[in-house]
Amino acid sequence: TKYDFDLAAVYVSDAQYNRNIFFDASPQAVRLYKFYNHWGLQVLIYLFIIVDLGLAAFEEPALIPDMPIWASSIVELICLMAFTARLTHYAKVIPREKFWLDPKNIFIIVIISLSLIDMIIYVGLKTAGHFGVRWSRVLRPLLLVNITEGRQLRRAFRSIRNALPQIFYVFLLFMFSVLMFSLMALKLFGKRGLETVEGIKYFTNYLEIVFDLYVLVTTANSPDVMMPAYNYSSFFAIFFIVYILINTYIFMSVFLAVVYNNYKKYLKEEVRQLVKAKRRKMLLAFSVLQQFGLGQEPVVSKAHWNQLVCLVQPGISSAHRELLWSVFDDNNKGYIGKLEFIQLPDLLNIQVITMKTRPHPLKRWFPAAYDSSTSRFVQRVVQHKGFVYIYDLIILVNAVFIGLDEENPLISNAEWVFLALYLVEILLKLYICEPRAFFSRHEFWNWFDTIIVVAALIATIFNWALSSSGGYTSRQILDIVFILRVLRLIRVVDSIKRFRTIINTLIKIGPTILTFGQLILVVYYIFAMVARIYFVVFHIVVVIIIINIFVAFILEAFFVEY
Amino acid sequence: TKYDFDLAAVYVSDAQYNRNIFFDASPQAVRLYKFYNHWGLQVLIYLFIIVDLGLAAFEEPALIPDMPIWASSIVELICLMAFTARLTHYAKVIPREKFWLDPKNIFIIVIISLSLIDMIIYVGLKTAGHFGVRWSRVLRPLLLVNITEGRQLRRAFRSIRNALPQIFYVFLLFMFSVLMFSLMALKLFGKRGLETVEGIKYFTNYLEIVFDLYVLVTTANSPDVMMPAYNYSSFFAIFFIVYILINTYIFMSVFLAVVYNNYKKYLKEEVRQLVKAKRRKMLLAFSVLQQFGLGQEPVVSKAHWNQLVCLVQPGISSAHRELLWSVFDDNNKGYIGKLEFIQLPDLLNIQVITMKTRPHPLKRWFPAAYDSSTSRFVQRVVQHKGFVYIYDLIILVNAVFIGLDEENPLISNAEWVFLALYLVEILLKLYICEPRAFFSRHEFWNWFDTIIVVAALIATIFNWALSSSGGYTSRQILDIVFILRVLRLIRVVDSIKRFRTIINTLIKIGPTILTFGQLILVVYYIFAMVARIYFVVFHIVVVIIIINIFVAFILEAFFVEY
Ligand code: NA
Repeated sequence: TKYDFDLAAVYVSDAQYNRNIFFDASPQAVRLYKFYNHWGLQVLIYLFIIVDLGLAAFEEPALIPDMPIWASSIVELICLMAFTARLTHYAKVIPREKFWLDPKNIFIIVIISLSLIDMIIYVGLKTAGHFGVRWSRVLRPLLLVNITEGRQLRRAFRSIRNALPQIFYVFLLFMFSVLMFSLMALKLFGKRGLETVEGIKYFTNYLEIVFDLYVLVTTANSPDVMMPAYNYSSFFAIFFIVYILINTYIFMSVFLAVVYNNYKKYLKEEVRQLVKAKRRKMLLAFSVLQQFGLGQEPVVSKAHWNQLVCLVQPGISSAHRELLWSVFDDNNKGYIGKLEFIQLPDLLNIQVITMKTRPHPLKRWFPAAYDSSTSRFVQRVVQHKGFVYIYDLIILVNAVFIGLDEENPLISNAEWVFLALYLVEILLKLYICEPRAFFSRHEFWNWFDTIIVVAALIATIFNWALSSSGGYTSRQILDIVFILRVLRLIRVVDSIKRFRTIINTLIKIGPTILTFGQLILVVYYIFAMVARIYFVVFHIVVVIIIINIFVAFILEAFFVEY
Repeated sequence: TKYDFDLAAVYVSDAQYNRNIFFDASPQAVRLYKFYNHWGLQVLIYLFIIVDLGLAAFEEPALIPDMPIWASSIVELICLMAFTARLTHYAKVIPREKFWLDPKNIFIIVIISLSLIDMIIYVGLKTAGHFGVRWSRVLRPLLLVNITEGRQLRRAFRSIRNALPQIFYVFLLFMFSVLMFSLMALKLFGKRGLETVEGIKYFTNYLEIVFDLYVLVTTANSPDVMMPAYNYSSFFAIFFIVYILINTYIFMSVFLAVVYNNYKKYLKEEVRQLVKAKRRKMLLAFSVLQQFGLGQEPVVSKAHWNQLVCLVQPGISSAHRELLWSVFDDNNKGYIGKLEFIQLPDLLNIQVITMKTRPHPLKRWFPAAYDSSTSRFVQRVVQHKGFVYIYDLIILVNAVFIGLDEENPLISNAEWVFLALYLVEILLKLYICEPRAFFSRHEFWNWFDTIIVVAALIATIFNWALSSSGGYTSRQILDIVFILRVLRLIRVVDSIKRFRTIINTLIKIGPTILTFGQLILVVYYIFAMVARIYFVVFHIVVVIIIINIFVAFILEAFFVEY
C-alpha cells in the first residue's frame, strides 16, 4: 500500500541522515514525522533559537539599548511559542511513554517554563519600578543542545564527558606545576622590591602570582608579566622560558595527546552505534516491504524498490536509480535480498555526478543559434584554461583597486567595471553549463560566486542610490560592500590545485566545524550571562577541552579526507 | 682472537646504540673507535659546545660585559682546539675516502676555520681600535647538528625538511587569508579615523595591518590590537573573533595535521632505516665470530657468546647473561645461529631489573646488628605505606613554610629541620635498599632526591656561613637555595599513581624532548645572532614548524608509551 511505502521511505531516510528516533508507526504519525523532518521547519527552529539568543544584545546590560521591554518580551514570547509548537509536534510523532522518558524533552519543557516564569516576574518587577535580573538567559543556549537537530552537538558533549577524567589528572599535574613555579617566583622576585610599569609591587602576593602565571600559559599577558624581572636581570628570562616550555608547550601537548587519544577511542564506539542504529532502521524498512515467494528468502522486487527510492529521493534521475540497482542486483534477477537492501542509505549518500544528463535549455529553445559558429566559439573560449587565468588576473587587479583610496572617483567607478566583469563571468558559465547542474548542491564555488556578486551588486546599487539622491553615504552599507568585495577575491584559491585540496577538505568537514562553533557559543553564552567571564574557568573549558577536541577532530578528519 | 672479540663487541654496541658509522676494521682503529665512543668524551664535547655557545653572553653586545677580549678569545681557542682534536680522532677511525665524502666533517672543518679567521680579524681590528663584528657566531650552533652525537637532531631536521613542501602550501593559503583579512580591516577601520591608546592612527597602513594581524595569530598583541575597533563598536569584535577562529584555530590545527601526517609517514621510514643499519652491524659481528662444523650452518658457541656479551656490557650479572642465552637457545644446544644472534642488541636494550642480587653491605658487615629486632622494626617502618604518607605530609607542611616570610627566624630555622628530615629519609631508604640498586641508572627519583637534598644542604650551609661570619647574605645563593627547596616539593607527585604514569611517560620521552630543545636552541641562537629577531620568520620556523613537529612527536610518543 501507499502507507507501507511511505513508512519504508521514512525508515530509509532516517538511516540515510542518521536519525535514531523511535516514532509511532501509525499512518497519521508517519505523515507528521515526515513533516517534522522537513528542512524548512529545521531552518525555522534554528532561526528562532538565533533570535532568542540574540535578544541578549537588547536586554540589560544591553549592547543596543534602544529596545523597550514590551518589544523584547513579545519577541521572546513568539520564540517560546515556536519551541512549544515544535515540541508538541514531536510529542504527536513519538509514543507517549517514549516522549516522557527522553530527558531532552523534559529539558526543553523546563527551559520554556522557567523562561516564561522569569519573563513574567521580570516584566512585573520592571513595571513596578523595581530591579530585575533575567536569570533564565543562561538556559537559552541549552536549547541548541536539546533540540532533535542537536545530535552532533550532543555527540561532542559526550566526547567531552568521556575525556574529562583523563584530562582532570593532567590538569591537576599542570596546576601543581603552576603552583610550584609560582612559589619559586614568589621567593625569587618577591623580596627584590620590583615594580610593574603601573608602579604596583611585582610578584609579592602568592595568589596573584598564580593567576598571572596561569594567564601566561595562554601568552595573553606575555611579555608584560616578565618585563620587571627581565629588566632587573636578563638571567631571569630563563625562569620564564622554562616556565613557558613546560607549561605551555609540554603540558598543552600532553592535553592534546590525552584528548586525541580519547577522541579516537570514543569515535570508534560512536561509529559502531551509528551503524547499529542505521541497520535497525533498514531492517524495519525491509520488513515492511518484503515479498515472499520470489526467492528462497524474503526479497524486495525492483518495482517496489524503484517506488521506494523515488519517495526517498524525489529528484533522482532514472539513470542514477538504474546505476544503484545494478550495484545490488548484479545477476539481473529482478529482486534483492535483505543484505543488499540494507546498504541502500550508504549508496544514496555517495555523490554521483550525473554528467550532462539534460541538454542546455538554450539548446532546446534555440538549437540553431546555440550551435552556430559564434556560439561555439564563445563556448570554446569559456571552457579554455586561459579564461580562468584571465579572471584570476582580473581578481588580482581588483585586489589592488580595493586597496587604493575609494574616494578617488576613478577607483570607485572601476568597481562597476569589476562587478560587470564578474556578472559576465557567471552568465558565460551559465551559457555553457546546464543551470540545474551549475547550481547543484555540491557546487560550492558557483553558489559562492553568485551569492557574493549578486549581493555586492544590490549593495552597490543601493549605496549609489543613497549617495546620488541625498548625498548621504551609509557606513554600514559601505562596510557590507567592502566585505563582499574582499570575499570575492577568495575565489582565486580555487584556481590553484594544491589549495583546492586543502579548501575542499575544510569544506567537507565544515558542518562538523560548525558543531564546534555551536559548542563554543553555548559555553561562551553561559559564561557571559552568569557574570563577567571567569577567565580561568573559561580558559579551561574552552581552550583546554573544546579547542583540543577540535584539534583532535581536525587531525583525524585530515587523515581521512586529505 | 682477542681482536676478533673486540671488533664484534664494537659492532654489537654500534647496533645497540644505533650508531651507523663505517669505521676502519684495523686493530688500532677499532681501539681508537671504542675510545671515541666513550661517554666521557661525548660529555666533554657537549661541555665544550655549551662553553662555545655561552661565549655569546660575554661578547658584544654583551649580557655580561666584564670579560676582556683576550680571555674570551683564549676560551674560544681552547674550544676550537677541542673540536679539532675530536675531528682528528674521528678521521683516524674512519677510512680516509669515507671521511672526506661525509658533509658533516667538511661542515665542522669549515666552521672551525671560519671561526678562527673571524677571531683573528676581530682581535686585530679591536686592538687597532676599529669596529668589528663576530659574524662567525652564527655558525656555532651548527656544531650541535654536525657532531657524531647529533644523530637525533639531524633526524629532526630531516623530518622538518620532509614536511616543508606540504607546510609551504598551507602556509601560502594561511598568508592569503591574513592578506584578505588585512584588506578587509583596511576598508572597515582605515577611514573611521580611529586611534590607538598611544594616539597613533589605527589600521591605516596596509603592511602594518598585515603585520599586526599576523602577530594576532600568536595572540601576542591580543587584545590591544582590537581595542580601538571594539571601543568604536562592539560589533567589530565579530571581525576579530572570526579572524582568530579561522587563522589561529583552524589554520594552526591544519598545520599540525599536515605536520603530524608527515611525521608519522616519515617515522616509519626512519625506523626501517635504523633496523636495516642495526642488522648490517650484527651481520658483520656474526661474520667475525662465526664457527663452522657445530651445526649445518655457521653458528656462535655459548662460550664465545659469553665472552662477547661481557665485552659489550662489562657490568652484566651472570644471571642476566644466562637469562639472555636461554631466550635464544631454548633447546639447550650450546650454540646459536645467525637469526638468533642478530637479536642480541634488542634484548640488551630491554631493562632487566635484577631483584636483590646482592645482600645489603650492612648485613654482610654486621649481620647480627642488621637482623636484630630493632633493626627489623626500622626496616618494616620504612617499607610501610605510612612512611610515604608521613613524608608527603612533611613536604606539604614544608611548602607552607616556604610560602611564609623567610626573614622570620622561626621559619628560617625550620628549614634546617626539613633538611634534616629529608636527609634522614634518604639514609633510611639506603638502610633497607642496597646502595648500588638504590642508585641504579633508572631510579630517577632516588637520584633526584639525593642531588636536590645534598645541593640544598651545601647551599644552605654556605649561606649560613656567609651570613653568620660577615652578616652578609648573597642573593644569588639564596636564589639557588629557594629553587632547590621548591624543586624538592615536586617529589610529592610520585606518590600519586595517576600522576606517576604521566610523569614516567614524560621522563621516558625526555631525551627526545631534549632534542627538540636543541633544535629550538639552534634556530633561536642563529636568529638572535644574525640581528634582532625577525619576529615573523622566527615565528614561522619555531611555532609553525618546530612546535608542531614537537607536538606531533608528543602525540605519537604518548600513544605508544601512555
Ligand atoms: Na598577549
